[in-house]
Amino acid sequence: MATTIERSGEYKVIGTRPIRPDGVDKVTGRAKYAADGPVAGLLYGKTLRSPHAHALIKSIDVSRALKLPGVRAVVTSKDLPQAPDEPVSLGEGPMVNLRFLSANILAQGKVLYKGHAVASVAADSVNIAEEALALIDVEYEVLPPVMTALEAMKEGAAILHENLTTTSLGKNTGKVSNIATQSQFSAGDVEKGFKESDLVIEREFTTPTVHQGYIEPQSVTALWNTDGEITIWTSTQGHFGIRQNSAAVLGVPVSQVRVIPMEIGGGFGAKTTFYFEPPAAIMSRKTGRPVKMTMTRAEVLEATGPGSGSYTRVKMGVKKDGQIVAAQAYLAFEAGAFPGSAVNAGAMCMLNMYNIENILIDANDVVVNKPKSAAYRAPGSPQATFAVECVVDEICEQLGMDPLEFRLKNASKEGDRQASGVPFGRIGNIETLMAAKDSPHYNAPLEGKYRGRGIASGFWFNGGMQSSCNIAVNPDGTVGLVEGSVDIGGTRAAIAMQAAEVLGLAMEDVHAVVADTSSVGYTAVTGGSRTTFATGWAAYEAALDVIGQMKERVSKLWETSVDEVEFNDAVFTRKGNPEQQVTFKQLSGRLMETGGPLVGKSTVSPRGVGAAFAHHIVDVEVDPETGKVDILRYTALQDVGKAIHPSYVEGQMQGGASQGIGWAINEEYFYNDKGLMANASFLDYRMPTSLDLPMIDTIMVEVPNPGHPYGVRGVGEVCIVPPLAAIANAISHAIGVRMYDLPMNPGRVLAAVLKKEKL
Amino acid sequence: MATTIERSGEYKVIGTRPIRPDGVDKVTGRAKYAADGPVAGLLYGKTLRSPHAHALIKSIDVSRALKLPGVRAVVTSKDLPQAPDEPVSLGEGPMVNLRFLSANILAQGKVLYKGHAVASVAADSVNIAEEALALIDVEYEVLPPVMTALEAMKEGAAILHENLTTTSLGKNTGKVSNIATQSQFSAGDVEKGFKESDLVIEREFTTPTVHQGYIEPQSVTALWNTDGEITIWTSTQGHFGIRQNSAAVLGVPVSQVRVIPMEIGGGFGAKTTFYFEPPAAIMSRKTGRPVKMTMTRAEVLEATGPGSGSYTRVKMGVKKDGQIVAAQAYLAFEAGAFPGSAVNAGAMCMLNMYNIENILIDANDVVVNKPKSAAYRAPGSPQATFAVECVVDEICEQLGMDPLEFRLKNASKEGDRQASGVPFGRIGNIETLMAAKDSPHYNAPLEGKYRGRGIASGFWFNGGMQSSCNIAVNPDGTVGLVEGSVDIGGTRAAIAMQAAEVLGLAMEDVHAVVADTSSVGYTAVTGGSRTTFATGWAAYEAALDVIGQMKERVSKLWETSVDEVEFNDAVFTRKGNPEQQVTFKQLSGRLMETGGPLVGKSTVSPRGVGAAFAHHIVDVEVDPETGKVDILRYTALQDVGKAIHPSYVEGQMQGGASQGIGWAINEEYFYNDKGLMANASFLDYRMPTSLDLPMIDTIMVEVPNPGHPYGVRGVGEVCIVPPLAAIANAISHAIGVRMYDLPMNPGRVLAAVLKKEKL
Repeated sequence: MATTIERSGEYKVIGTRPIRPDGVDKVTGRAKYAADGPVAGLLYGKTLRSPHAHALIKSIDVSRALKLPGVRAVVTSKDLPQAPDEPVSLGEGPMVNLRFLSANILAQGKVLYKGHAVASVAADSVNIAEEALALIDVEYEVLPPVMTALEAMKEGAAILHENLTTTSLGKNTGKVSNIATQSQFSAGDVEKGFKESDLVIEREFTTPTVHQGYIEPQSVTALWNTDGEITIWTSTQGHFGIRQNSAAVLGVPVSQVRVIPMEIGGGFGAKTTFYFEPPAAIMSRKTGRPVKMTMTRAEVLEATGPGSGSYTRVKMGVKKDGQIVAAQAYLAFEAGAFPGSAVNAGAMCMLNMYNIENILIDANDVVVNKPKSAAYRAPGSPQATFAVECVVDEICEQLGMDPLEFRLKNASKEGDRQASGVPFGRIGNIETLMAAKDSPHYNAPLEGKYRGRGIASGFWFNGGMQSSCNIAVNPDGTVGLVEGSVDIGGTRAAIAMQAAEVLGLAMEDVHAVVADTSSVGYTAVTGGSRTTFATGWAAYEAALDVIGQMKERVSKLWETSVDEVEFNDAVFTRKGNPEQQVTFKQLSGRLMETGGPLVGKSTVSPRGVGAAFAHHIVDVEVDPETGKVDILRYTALQDVGKAIHPSYVEGQMQGGASQGIGWAINEEYFYNDKGLMANASFLDYRMPTSLDLPMIDTIMVEVPNPGHPYGVRGVGEVCIVPPLAAIANAISHAIGVRMYDLPMNPGRVLAAVLKKEKL
Repeated sequence: MATTIERSGEYKVIGTRPIRPDGVDKVTGRAKYAADGPVAGLLYGKTLRSPHAHALIKSIDVSRALKLPGVRAVVTSKDLPQAPDEPVSLGEGPMVNLRFLSANILAQGKVLYKGHAVASVAADSVNIAEEALALIDVEYEVLPPVMTALEAMKEGAAILHENLTTTSLGKNTGKVSNIATQSQFSAGDVEKGFKESDLVIEREFTTPTVHQGYIEPQSVTALWNTDGEITIWTSTQGHFGIRQNSAAVLGVPVSQVRVIPMEIGGGFGAKTTFYFEPPAAIMSRKTGRPVKMTMTRAEVLEATGPGSGSYTRVKMGVKKDGQIVAAQAYLAFEAGAFPGSAVNAGAMCMLNMYNIENILIDANDVVVNKPKSAAYRAPGSPQATFAVECVVDEICEQLGMDPLEFRLKNASKEGDRQASGVPFGRIGNIETLMAAKDSPHYNAPLEGKYRGRGIASGFWFNGGMQSSCNIAVNPDGTVGLVEGSVDIGGTRAAIAMQAAEVLGLAMEDVHAVVADTSSVGYTAVTGGSRTTFATGWAAYEAALDVIGQMKERVSKLWETSVDEVEFNDAVFTRKGNPEQQVTFKQLSGRLMETGGPLVGKSTVSPRGVGAAFAHHIVDVEVDPETGKVDILRYTALQDVGKAIHPSYVEGQMQGGASQGIGWAINEEYFYNDKGLMANASFLDYRMPTSLDLPMIDTIMVEVPNPGHPYGVRGVGEVCIVPPLAAIANAISHAIGVRMYDLPMNPGRVLAAVLKKEKL
């Protein structure tokens, strides 16, 4: 069931559900993914990876590998023009630390996780390359692995980076430690708040390392031409970012690198970073041939960027009437082998559903011997919010309050202060909570033993950043739209629709093309729920530019001033003389006689990003004999601003919920005592399939974002924030006992049931 | 030897000789040509062609072919949504006649030349497709072929198109005939002029059908997707034109067609038209798979668009002092199987080197049973000018005048009237003649029996039309330039250089990309010597747009008005305070903080096209025993306006001369008495190789075109106009007898020698 609660204006194109332009190519297998890159003269690259979670590299000898017939090149970190091996303190450095970026791509002196790349080989075939890997002699000195944030923070823990000193509250402490950064977000006085509270609850939570689970493994082909130009075909969410970072790691100007984004088989944040681009490029330079590197699934799991494992402690104090007086949180997130930023985002999101006078959040970014985590849909927020929303549920239980009433009582609204200190603009938190209260699901009874209903909420900022578009008018009155945003969720359609709305055209008349870094203006990553918002805005502006120029053409035809020409519904009319008309289509056929071809363009850096709220309702049933959790019914509610293409918004909401369900009840990186992942396959790393899930109902609540011409808010990320707690809360209501650690897999749930029933 | 006579301003980039951006890819074999198009799931198309020069098609039976295993589709003219079979009179129709366009692609009821396509087959392999062709049963009724214009114009000649009536001086005569159009260009009173003349000479000339001889045969892959979108990968000089004409012939809107131009292995005008795009698209629609069609060399020669064979009669009257008083010409050009336009262009060019009071030119466009001719470098002008320049040479001989003095006396100049009636703008005819007079070649003696020196001149209009560019600024201070002009002669470099000059960058900092029809604004064909002129201008305008926007950014940084910001030599300075500076590069790195990404764009339809003149000097030696002509020395002089990239201008001048030499002494379509081409291979159709040619010296005379910001004139075409007559004149001086028919091959020259020497 999919419901829309509309609060926005009348549109002709926006809000309809046309078929996406890439649909046919994708269902017929014609869409070109990175593995379908160029083929002539290819070499195939494979990567030797660390078998250890933590070890010094004493030596690497590639001579035997190079002698194998068919081997063309080998690359190790020595081939990268590394940043100097200076002390690193992140508070004072650039946002992206070049040395860490390089060292994650090819290990420098140390391997920091199982699967860490040590060397790559380019050969005439994949088989020869794999054979050559076995001929590379690496001498390791194995070190003790450090696998969790709490363990890594202990005095005496093995240190990953001897030159990394902790930055605390923006200042370099000078102390070498596994804690990269310590941040704090506060308001009011929590101690005073707890004293004024009638009920104070404090709990500890953990979540495991989880993977985004995109279908398409990373694949890259790089060609370093003899004139110095480097072309990279890759699967990425942001080709301009890949250009920037590849250039930095390779030590060449960005203009020397052209990145061609292929269709992408899922990313969820993980494909904002990169692994194979620099080594493939270097091996191409060495051989003069294009080098293709494609990961196996095990490599994807062990050596790309999963979502952070986390430890979070939350303490909340409330009045009897349910008003939250104070909230305190302590977060220690596993950044993986190199520093990250998810913990800060999580810290800044976790309490934003509520307006709380006194807050204090301490966030620790901690390096451990796991792959460097990458963004995963609202990075940091699901883990942190899981803790808050479980505590809120326990408070509601103890106060005997309806969880939606509790949330409505404390709900944040326009003008309230976010954890970051910035006040909220127009947000739809309350409207969405009201819709949840009114929803069929929430008003349906749930009966039966071992069944429970859970509620949880979530927040995500959404992003803005820069986008560029060009629109060229065709002689038949259609237009071509060139945009720089990789399409990972139907954005070609959603962006084209915003141009179509301005131009008075059907979406099908706006032919959208995603262009490479050389062929369109700078456009930031497809991520942060920014694409439909910002690139859509760019399309809107480019369309306005087209109309402005077309008005000039009309004014010439009619020998009048531009001000006399009005445009409405694909027709230009003369002010005060509506009989004098020329349609967009007619004028398109007369461009050559009125001044030549016509192209509109835009570059935008929009402010006015609208934040997003989601509230999820879930019913579960627990099998007391096995501990298996079945999802009986699931409803995702979300303030979507204005749904440009409702089907794709619903798809995002359902997708976020699905991934959250997996995270809640099954997914985890399972490590043995040597720090080695034991389940690096999709058989053993169990993600939900369609058979595991009910139809996920959606209720889109449209509270238009006044900061966007059509009221767009990002919709792709906040939907993964509530499921973790919603399911945890539902399970606790089903079995009558609270659990604090994810995943709530059959073993753990069964143990809880047995403990509760004292069996 | 290459000389430049400069008359233009000081530039930093323009006039230098950087390496072209496509150079490395082309010499290393990495450049992607049409035959390197998409590969997955390909079907291969082959074409059944007429074995007759002229025949009715009584029936086509494809049933046996369709039964051959591996055959997937067959296409005949019945699959094309033809224009109604109405009477055609070209004076009243559109410039491109849709029925003729279709009928040339797949014969409709009649075959009109040997090689005319009758049906195509798509199969799993080229071999199966070829096998299937033999299984298509076509019943012909053979008709008498009509092979030359004069023959075709005779009363009683076989008629090619029963529904084509002659348009004479713009009016439909109603008379069914092989003469498609008759045009006239006149001034003054030629009869009066001839009466006032002291010497009148009238001669008849013929030239054969010749081929452009590009290296790369036509190749097309088309995919008609199930959503109706048609993608075409092709070798073309103008992808927007291919889009337009493919859509017209297929009966779909242009926006349904996306044409991706691949690198092109030569075109010389011939790749402005198309053959395989519609049948490949239709067979793709029938099969759901991409269909690739590539010509053999024999198909290229027999079934693409060669340059017109011609008959030209010229009568000129002069005073004793050498002043030309009157000139009359009668032209009958072979259009091939469908009407053309080269004869009119030839008629309008042939006398433009001279300022003549009385002229009368009659031009007849005549259909014959040869492949429909296409553009070939200054189409029409070489054939027509050959006649004029041979007569001029004979006049000089009879008057005892130096041929350059004669030309200087009669040379056209700014303000003089062209044959079209339009007055000349600033032209460099006289300056180039003066340079020829001063040239080392002209001042060097030529001694020896059977040696002779020839002089001839030529004119070409050059074209303007529409072009579009976008320029995006990279953070490292370089830019990406997106343009719509296919690069057939180094235009990526020449266009990038014009942007670089504005931006104060090196050419290497302007990364030029040729974009497909969906990815850049409308840009007309690369032809008519327009590309460096018009698309270069578009690049110039887009660069100015960039600077304008960057000045706004600077004004924000400096909190001043835009008027206070000056730009010079890649540095922005504050008016009156030259110490306050920011460089282009610095500002490029600060775009994100000053408003976001920055893209400049332009669309231009420039007027002010500058016409081009060339004067060539050639020394030949004739072997009296074989009739073989050796080119001893060759100097090409040309008013090049301003040479943006001198090496590529010289390359054009040398290339034009080389092709003209082949046309003069060796090349011809040799037809047997059934109208069948007997020499359809590069072994038998003999083009000059490097061993046949001396180094061709160039003298570029720069008379800047005031109609272009940098003074550019087109340079690619006029250079093929003089060689035909220059060589003919040299041969006549070498052997002492005049010849009037091309090619002046060994057989003909030997016959002339023998006749002269009465052997």
